[in-house]
Amino acid sequence: MSCFQVRTDLALEARESIGEAEEIRGVSVEETYDEKNEIRVTRVIIETKNGAKAMGKPIGTYTTLEAPRMVEPDENYHQEISSALAKELKDIIPEAEEEQSVLIVGLGNRDVTADALGPNVADNLFITRHVVMEYGKAAYSKSKMNMVSSIVPGVMAKTGMESAEIIKGVIDQTKPDVVIVVDALAARSTKRLNRTIQVTNTGIHPGSGVGNHRNALTKESLEVPVIAIGVPTVVDAATIVNDAVSGEMKVNLAELNNMYVTSKDVDYQIKQISHVICDALNEALEL
Amino acid sequence: MSCFQVRTDLALEARESIGEAEEIRGVSVEETYDEKNEIRVTRVIIETKNGAKAMGKPIGTYTTLEAPRMVEPDENYHQEISSALAKELKDIIPEAEEEQSVLIVGLGNRDVTADALGPNVADNLFITRHVVMEYGKAAYSKSKMNMVSSIVPGVMAKTGMESAEIIKGVIDQTKPDVVIVVDALAARSTKRLNRTIQVTNTGIHPGSGVGNHRNALTKESLEVPVIAIGVPTVVDAATIVNDAVSGEMKVNLAELNNMYVTSKDVDYQIKQISHVICDALNEALEL
Amino acid sequence: MSCFQVRTDLALEARESIGEAEEIRGVSVEETYDEKNEIRVTRVIIETKNGAKAMGKPIGTYTTLEAPRMVEPDENYHQEISSALAKELKDIIPEAEEEQSVLIVGLGNRDVTADALGPNVADNLFITRHVVMEYGKAAYSKSKMNMVSSIVPGVMAKTGMESAEIIKGVIDQTKPDVVIVVDALAARSTKRLNRTIQVTNTGIHPGSGVGNHRNALTKESLEVPVIAIGVPTVVDAATIVNDAVSGEMKVNLAELNNMYVTSKDVDYQIKQISHVICDALNEALEL
Amino acid sequence: MSCFQVRTDLALEARESIGEAEEIRGVSVEETYDEKNEIRVTRVIIETKNGAKAMGKPIGTYTTLEAPRMVEPDENYHQEISSALAKELKDIIPEAEEEQSVLIVGLGNRDVTADALGPNVADNLFITRHVVMEYGKAAYSKSKMNMVSSIVPGVMAKTGMESAEIIKGVIDQTKPDVVIVVDALAARSTKRLNRTIQVTNTGIHPGSGVGNHRNALTKESLEVPVIAIGVPTVVDAATIVNDAVSGEMKVNLAELNNMYVTSKDVDYQIKQISHVICDALNEALEL
Repeated sequence: MSCFQVRTDLALEARESIGEAEEIRGVSVEETYDEKNEIRVTRVIIETKNGAKAMGKPIGTYTTLEAPRMVEPDENYHQEISSALAKELKDIIPEAEEEQSVLIVGLGNRDVTADALGPNVADNLFITRHVVMEYGKAAYSKSKMNMVSSIVPGVMAKTGMESAEIIKGVIDQTKPDVVIVVDALAARSTKRLNRTIQVTNTGIHPGSGVGNHRNALTKESLEVPVIAIGVPTVVDAATIVNDAVSGEMKVNLAELNNMYVTSKDVDYQIKQISHVICDALNEALEL
Repeated sequence: MSCFQVRTDLALEARESIGEAEEIRGVSVEETYDEKNEIRVTRVIIETKNGAKAMGKPIGTYTTLEAPRMVEPDENYHQEISSALAKELKDIIPEAEEEQSVLIVGLGNRDVTADALGPNVADNLFITRHVVMEYGKAAYSKSKMNMVSSIVPGVMAKTGMESAEIIKGVIDQTKPDVVIVVDALAARSTKRLNRTIQVTNTGIHPGSGVGNHRNALTKESLEVPVIAIGVPTVVDAATIVNDAVSGEMKVNLAELNNMYVTSKDVDYQIKQISHVICDALNEALEL
Repeated sequence: MSCFQVRTDLALEARESIGEAEEIRGVSVEETYDEKNEIRVTRVIIETKNGAKAMGKPIGTYTTLEAPRMVEPDENYHQEISSALAKELKDIIPEAEEEQSVLIVGLGNRDVTADALGPNVADNLFITRHVVMEYGKAAYSKSKMNMVSSIVPGVMAKTGMESAEIIKGVIDQTKPDVVIVVDALAARSTKRLNRTIQVTNTGIHPGSGVGNHRNALTKESLEVPVIAIGVPTVVDAATIVNDAVSGEMKVNLAELNNMYVTSKDVDYQIKQISHVICDALNEALEL
Repeated sequence: MSCFQVRTDLALEARESIGEAEEIRGVSVEETYDEKNEIRVTRVIIETKNGAKAMGKPIGTYTTLEAPRMVEPDENYHQEISSALAKELKDIIPEAEEEQSVLIVGLGNRDVTADALGPNVADNLFITRHVVMEYGKAAYSKSKMNMVSSIVPGVMAKTGMESAEIIKGVIDQTKPDVVIVVDALAARSTKRLNRTIQVTNTGIHPGSGVGNHRNALTKESLEVPVIAIGVPTVVDAATIVNDAVSGEMKVNLAELNNMYVTSKDVDYQIKQISHVICDALNEALEL
């Protein structure tokens, strides 16, 4: 691994950066490919402390769904991706015999396009908790009805509070069984931007995400299982220059501070992916 | 008082509806008028249970600032209104010898124009808590620096939670000394729309506000002093018809259910008033 | 007809205000009702100058589609309304043997919720003219492909120009075969708000619309057939008070100047109706 | 000059890429620096066909204003930049003895952050044409009052028309004396993003701008003088990698297609710069 620490929130990229030939003890990788829909699902499981150290990521399961045509305006295809994502979400959400109460957190800044994924998803969810609280699950004429709530905590520059403080407070008051956090991520390579969705049961860790939300959102810190759904929407500009160069480098990266690389269609693409994730959450939670 | 219960969130209108001639025990009214700036400040103080019953509002101080030209695009005049409002806010915010920690809550729905006042104000505040927490008040090179934080809880249909649940959670985590809630109100008369600001130390009560935020946000429920800033932005359509008619009524009001009367320029006017309130909060909190 | 001239952009309401019993020479009315989908289609045809005078509207065809559940979040039902509307649009758009070039104009102010219908529709249309111009209709692998373009002229306060000036200029440059104008209307009664769509081949006339776009957009002024699609989104507040009162009036209407009555959910409802109209236009133009 | 044609819309960067030591016949460069406000103004004048060929840009004047702190939230400083820009605009706008009619065009896509500069400026201008047309210049109680109008033509994917078609049509109808076009540009280097404003009397040429507006907007094509105001808001990702590397390159740039580099704060910065340009236009046009 290069001494220049490449920033990536994707376990898949962390694995690739080590080199495929090299086996890493404590890390297993499974891959399935749906040829018809061109959807690749890769499951990286970090099983041991050794694996965690090698990967620079905590022990847990990291499932990555890659779909090159994710942002094309094709609703049928979106449905295929949503269903594939819903399947992975169901696998990773802790099982329960009865209805669950699920808090979905939309991290990020709704006024910064590349960071607005979380708020966009939260804005469009099917929310049921208040109705079940008031009228019981019978309100939906279904035998089982999960209670879904959501919060967009906003960013520290606008709230003066850590996202973690707000989320902890909301959890204390509303006692969800599981928390699902949605966030925009930084990738290492532009080829994954806006076409990759990572689902992990390890939550969110300091320094990750586009907006650098610093405090941990994990089972340890929140005392409830935390699933994180992330989509890489930017690459640090310094990373991309570094990666593009394979020979001797004479590169001045200072100028690239606070710059990122993103797709020209990022505004449109974020909306499309938000819909895919919304639909997947609705399906996974049987709404 | 008419058997047709007129809905108004303004103590001033509640007082008027009783009739000026009639004295109400336990309710005092003071008025000052700044002729140059055409700003009228009316302070209604409900001092006793009897007064509270007569007015249909809890014991406390209700200060109303009326400025007919509030929404005109004149920045100097806005400054005058902001300063007048800041003076009233300082009067009503509990005094403290030292810096205070103030949580400002923007109630309402940012996607519904007439209900977006609270979120608009919250989005534009000068937020300091996170900086003071990290670097100390010295970061601002001032001898005294209040810690300001803010939250936009969103509406129940989108969060599945009562605003009160979210706010209680945030208060538990961040321990503010005082909470200031900003909300859009319903008035009884169109003549007060978007030109009146009410400040009260009684907080927010069930059933008030444009969006009908149901749970109380008061000193009793939140265990911290609660100041409420409200601006009437709509009139219930049924109210306006009722008020317009003084003779025998043969009016079918059912059709007017879920309708409101608002200014044609409401989108622009809400933005203007948000700026006035932001500036007043910054001045009152010495930011 | 009352001496208090009721403002309505709907021919249907103009007809009703005269009284059903009274026959009007030169005006015919046909009605069909789709019971399953609760869609009522009323066609008012003003055939003579006498009819035009009686109705206060120019000679032409005015088709009104009423669907009480138009704004409910039911996509299948939306599809039914869209198809019904598409059928009416096909009837009223002048027939052509070959492909047509169609300019769709979104009138109104995108920053004023109740007036943003036209811009919302224009923003979401399927636009083909530039592709057909560059690659020929073969680009779409269809034997027939209409060329669709669109413009949002904006409002005079922001452009300094009449909408008619901008539209005439665009017509001169791009020579469409037919112009379709979409606009928000004022109704006389709240019961039609956001659940009624009027289609007419008479274009837009001075003084109509929410935003009072003053210049005519008609076949006479633009030298090309003009279809207008309108949806009532507001009622003048004065009108509603007037209508609600059937006995002796002692009403002061001055205060209601510049006020309108609208639905509490107007922001959401405008989006829903925009989708219905978009889909109908795509279907009618065989896109 | 490198065989890899660097894309830049800035004459200043085109000049730099040739090398300062090298004198170019037919191109003159003047520079002034306001030390107090850290505002650098560079005027590149391309005087001859030879100069135009060497620079890859048409004959004309290109004034660049660089202010490193342009996007800082300091209103007084913004005022300084606006005034400096207003001075340059006055120099470059053709002189007139009488009032002028000025059409300001906001190019770009209001739904794509980095491309929304033009629409943002147009939305906030002080528009006078319609008032002067209706009431005469006396309406403003000034001896001289320019008639300002504005148009946001939108992008071809949404209108089906070239911006040039729409603008030509509007010019034919409203006969402005001068056209001022505002657009987001692509720069070669991130160090100029959102802190540089270029003003030129050569208009807009095919292939320039963030959104690649293809048709020329020039005095030749529109038959009226065309001033262009541009701000670099993005760098092509391929360009930045190319520039960062000074040794032997083994760079695969294909992956960077359709990617751009932009500031993390681009949403906020575009708003700030829009205000600067608005204020400068108001001052230059004596509004």
